[in-house]
Amino acid sequence: MINVGVLGATGAVGQRFVEILANHPWFDLVTLAASDRSAGKPYGKVVNWRLDTPFPENISKVKVSPTSPKSMKDVDLVFSALPAEIASDVEVEFADAGIGVCSNASSHRMEPDIPLVVPEVNPDHLGLIDVQRDEGRDGFIVTNPNCSTIMMVMALAPIRSFKFSNVKVATMQAISGAGFAGVAAMAIYDNVIPYIGQEEQKMETESLKIMGTLKEKKVINAPFSVSASCHRVPVIDGHTLAVWVNIKNPVKDLVKAYQNYKPPIKGLPTQPEKSVLLMEENDRPQPRLDRMRGKGMTVSVGRLREGVRFVAMGHNTIRGAAGASVLNAELIHKKKYL
Amino acid sequence: MINVGVLGATGAVGQRFVEILANHPWFDLVTLAASDRSAGKPYGKVVNWRLDTPFPENISKVKVSPTSPKSMKDVDLVFSALPAEIASDVEVEFADAGIGVCSNASSHRMEPDIPLVVPEVNPDHLGLIDVQRDEGRDGFIVTNPNCSTIMMVMALAPIRSFKFSNVKVATMQAISGAGFAGVAAMAIYDNVIPYIGQEEQKMETESLKIMGTLKEKKVINAPFSVSASCHRVPVIDGHTLAVWVNIKNPVKDLVKAYQNYKPPIKGLPTQPEKSVLLMEENDRPQPRLDRMRGKGMTVSVGRLREGVRFVAMGHNTIRGAAGASVLNAELIHKKKYL
Amino acid sequence: MINVGVLGATGAVGQRFVEILANHPWFDLVTLAASDRSAGKPYGKVVNWRLDTPFPENISKVKVSPTSPKSMKDVDLVFSALPAEIASDVEVEFADAGIGVCSNASSHRMEPDIPLVVPEVNPDHLGLIDVQRDEGRDGFIVTNPNCSTIMMVMALAPIRSFKFSNVKVATMQAISGAGFAGVAAMAIYDNVIPYIGQEEQKMETESLKIMGTLKEKKVINAPFSVSASCHRVPVIDGHTLAVWVNIKNPVKDLVKAYQNYKPPIKGLPTQPEKSVLLMEENDRPQPRLDRMRGKGMTVSVGRLREGVRFVAMGHNTIRGAAGASVLNAELIHKKKYL
Amino acid sequence: MINVGVLGATGAVGQRFVEILANHPWFDLVTLAASDRSAGKPYGKVVNWRLDTPFPENISKVKVSPTSPKSMKDVDLVFSALPAEIASDVEVEFADAGIGVCSNASSHRMEPDIPLVVPEVNPDHLGLIDVQRDEGRDGFIVTNPNCSTIMMVMALAPIRSFKFSNVKVATMQAISGAGFAGVAAMAIYDNVIPYIGQEEQKMETESLKIMGTLKEKKVINAPFSVSASCHRVPVIDGHTLAVWVNIKNPVKDLVKAYQNYKPPIKGLPTQPEKSVLLMEENDRPQPRLDRMRGKGMTVSVGRLREGVRFVAMGHNTIRGAAGASVLNAELIHKKKYL
Repeated sequence: MINVGVLGATGAVGQRFVEILANHPWFDLVTLAASDRSAGKPYGKVVNWRLDTPFPENISKVKVSPTSPKSMKDVDLVFSALPAEIASDVEVEFADAGIGVCSNASSHRMEPDIPLVVPEVNPDHLGLIDVQRDEGRDGFIVTNPNCSTIMMVMALAPIRSFKFSNVKVATMQAISGAGFAGVAAMAIYDNVIPYIGQEEQKMETESLKIMGTLKEKKVINAPFSVSASCHRVPVIDGHTLAVWVNIKNPVKDLVKAYQNYKPPIKGLPTQPEKSVLLMEENDRPQPRLDRMRGKGMTVSVGRLREGVRFVAMGHNTIRGAAGASVLNAELIHKKKYL
Repeated sequence: MINVGVLGATGAVGQRFVEILANHPWFDLVTLAASDRSAGKPYGKVVNWRLDTPFPENISKVKVSPTSPKSMKDVDLVFSALPAEIASDVEVEFADAGIGVCSNASSHRMEPDIPLVVPEVNPDHLGLIDVQRDEGRDGFIVTNPNCSTIMMVMALAPIRSFKFSNVKVATMQAISGAGFAGVAAMAIYDNVIPYIGQEEQKMETESLKIMGTLKEKKVINAPFSVSASCHRVPVIDGHTLAVWVNIKNPVKDLVKAYQNYKPPIKGLPTQPEKSVLLMEENDRPQPRLDRMRGKGMTVSVGRLREGVRFVAMGHNTIRGAAGASVLNAELIHKKKYL
Repeated sequence: MINVGVLGATGAVGQRFVEILANHPWFDLVTLAASDRSAGKPYGKVVNWRLDTPFPENISKVKVSPTSPKSMKDVDLVFSALPAEIASDVEVEFADAGIGVCSNASSHRMEPDIPLVVPEVNPDHLGLIDVQRDEGRDGFIVTNPNCSTIMMVMALAPIRSFKFSNVKVATMQAISGAGFAGVAAMAIYDNVIPYIGQEEQKMETESLKIMGTLKEKKVINAPFSVSASCHRVPVIDGHTLAVWVNIKNPVKDLVKAYQNYKPPIKGLPTQPEKSVLLMEENDRPQPRLDRMRGKGMTVSVGRLREGVRFVAMGHNTIRGAAGASVLNAELIHKKKYL
Repeated sequence: MINVGVLGATGAVGQRFVEILANHPWFDLVTLAASDRSAGKPYGKVVNWRLDTPFPENISKVKVSPTSPKSMKDVDLVFSALPAEIASDVEVEFADAGIGVCSNASSHRMEPDIPLVVPEVNPDHLGLIDVQRDEGRDGFIVTNPNCSTIMMVMALAPIRSFKFSNVKVATMQAISGAGFAGVAAMAIYDNVIPYIGQEEQKMETESLKIMGTLKEKKVINAPFSVSASCHRVPVIDGHTLAVWVNIKNPVKDLVKAYQNYKPPIKGLPTQPEKSVLLMEENDRPQPRLDRMRGKGMTVSVGRLREGVRFVAMGHNTIRGAAGASVLNAELIHKKKYL
């Protein structure tokens, strides 16, 4: 068992980390870090549990620690659910202190020596960990993408061998993506908000790095461009994407590609039976009915039709955040980087 | 004053017609047609008023009539809120009996001799009324487009002089578009349904006719193609569209075009002060806050940015249905077709 | 293993039955009955699965049967999710044919020889099965209460020894209580509907029978009265009740009663660890966060304060319907009535 | 015309004040006070207008003033939409400086020399203004009740002559009651929150003062008690109340009382045609359909039935806040207190 901790353990994504890690076969959740005023108290007394799954009682008595490498000496790996502005420095501090960091924050995603990884899409990018070590870092930072980006690149993975140069994507994103208090009820109820700060830029840049090629310790961006339009809709969990890709092949070839798709990894505990599921019903996927497929780790694709157009959907705080990061950690462990 | 009636007066769109016509300066609402079992009773006793605006008491005692030209002899014009499968025959019957029909139904929209009109976009297409008369019809049928289509073509009208060949559009459509009982709460609450029957086809074909050219009594389709992806979201009223158009001009030229836009019609009572409003705030338009602009007749455009991408939004049962039809009737009257 | 079937297996409550029974330790789900046009086809092809939990694949190939005792000869017990108007005759037919019927329908609940049972409240009322047998019936009918009623009687059970004569209850009920298509989105979105047909009467009569006393093969109603006001709110699952009981004892006595409460049954597979949970937080229970406690079988009580007032909440299609019926069947089996 | 101002003019209730006062026949809205950093700028540049009615352009250029009597010398009356903790001192400061204050804040409601007034219920309580003047205050403070309280006392007003000693009320309150950012979408979506801080206490005390008797310059509380249970539901505007009153008279007497009810005031511009409307349909009132009756100033009552039980509903930020305060000011003006 690997000893792990969570940074930012009381927030929305932090709680998802705790939920996923509470009974993990490889990782032992021994430390939970939160704000200084919570430090020293048991997690169960400090957290305001807001998930609709029951609170994992076995974690209740874990002591909350301050957010510093010193006070978390017993862990080999931390999961970071920190806000970007804090993550920026803190994650470097942990990595330099010899601790592995699997981060859901956006701070370091686009740095040339930091892997931005989706195990089903670019597992080999973990090779950038060696670059960090060459630079003298004892630990490492590995990041997972933005929640909308990951749904898109996973939906594109099975058809990446068909050449395309242009992707257009309109998102319909869930309110949980902004954290527990991020969206006021008065703002989103009976409404659509056609703007999410920085989201379009993230989709347009992160996707090129993820689907790019690692060559001589550098990632060369994938040769296509993305144009995104991001919208918030009154849905609790589950981001829906309407995607256009300029592939000329007939739809039936794409259907086959989805059906035959085999991800390049296997044997990871958090990996779902189907990483990408092609649905045939004409009104699916739907967030409320399909977001929990594969325990929230499956990306569902539907309405594949000429254009080429399709709809992709996945759980934004599981596959799009905490689950993505845990899956990365599992791959890192399997590849013996720990 | 012109005597008018409404067909299908008790349904969702029918009620919107009644609301708009109850105090109209040019039209006198004298007959309301509904199912046979309601015929003979006063409208106020028969209708289950479901709009959130107060019931127009002055219409309360208007007698409900059967849906036949015979029993509606006193009207010069009827507005049709009939379901498509019924509208198909009934509207022809009325038109042949010498009554003008302004229809919101889809049945006849794509027929070569039927005008499919948005006054701000193609007022000259009313010329097809002459074709109908040449064919021996005493009355006429004039149609307005599908609710999503009209938002799109109005948003494109101010920039139509910039050449483009390709439009992509993802819609986020309100539940009222399916009628009062059309969408079950269990189906749409906390959810997105990525499919609306026939909606994509309508957007892809109707728009080409509307933006086409009337030449020698025929409409030549506009020279671009549309690729639509339609989705239902948990919003009561107001369709939101994310649109891409392949225009190469810089965004500032388009901004100017929107700001200087003057629709080709004026002086119609239902026409809003601004038919197309360009919003500058980065998180607008929003259905709940902006759908009632111009009494529900304004289409709001926002987030105009390179790509070219923008968001368009309008009230689907006013600008997208009853209001569109009444505006058509006003234009018809002004052009002396009655 | 007992062979069981479900009547009305494709509806909202029917699907909940299938979900709960798919992997039951005592019951083997061998037959699913639905409308005649589905008969003969595999359940997986016929059902439009609308729960947000995954479809139980092991049930996929079970053949759908017509709704008649003849075609369901291999079962000892059926669960009825039929609409009341159909249940009325069909359930008698099954019971007379020697099959046990655990019914969620309201048709027979108030008949003097039919047990209306909540295992934690009145397990002894199963004694009425003997009355049915004395009357010559080979099988039996046992019913569970209306979904709001059950939340109320369970919340009252731990404090029933304190005398009270008067209960007032205002409900805030979920939309799933009306079935998949029962409530239109346009009707309930951004709204409260202060009326649910027959609901108040059911709460006011069923509760007196359930909390009544079985004496000489007759149930004597409990000596209190109930006054209910029932409302539909925009919540998917989970009925919330605001309750007043005229108990004069201090609140701390009631707290103790809840904390020390031990239901009169144990060892039933579907019974939750806590049948009635007293929550101390001042803003709980909440349907989204608490409805799945005890796999949907726990009734949560909170805000216990002088008055005496409290709030009770439970999952309406699990504890309030299918789960209640399965728990009854487990009790029946344990008591050797099968 | 009386010159008036609004304190806290950019918040949720502040915006409602501006909306109502923008075109008022008696009051000229000349000053809008907000936080110091907004002072000096035009209101239109400072306010983030969040109502779904159009921004009143005629108010756009009114300069925002600091919140002090000195900088608001030109007004005779201010409306206070300040938060309670600020209102406490600021309102006294204004009143002592000779300015009339009509306050929606809770700070001073229960003070013996401050009128807590609903014009239709206790207009004579304005007499307490004389007490304030006797105490040497040049201006005055007049308050309106909490938003749930006002719906209840108005619904009770027509039947107050029937003796009752006990009221029980369960509320289903809209999210707008907590201000624009008061309730997170994640907290209330698909949910009921069975707690609103201080709300129950306010309903239980304010109502007794309002329905009390002014005698020798003191208010003697009404001789009944109220027991409230308050809940937040996913509704934008409109509080719904389920009410029990221990009146023994037959329901038909109460129906008559509602139908014959004539409020003790008339001729006030903001007063609706019907202050209290009794609805006969069995599923009304409903917030989305009925909250705008009487421009948001009517309280609708329905489901009047033996018990005695009924449902009351009104618009919480109009009749329950800004509109209530403006109506008070109109009465004050009419009674020549200005």
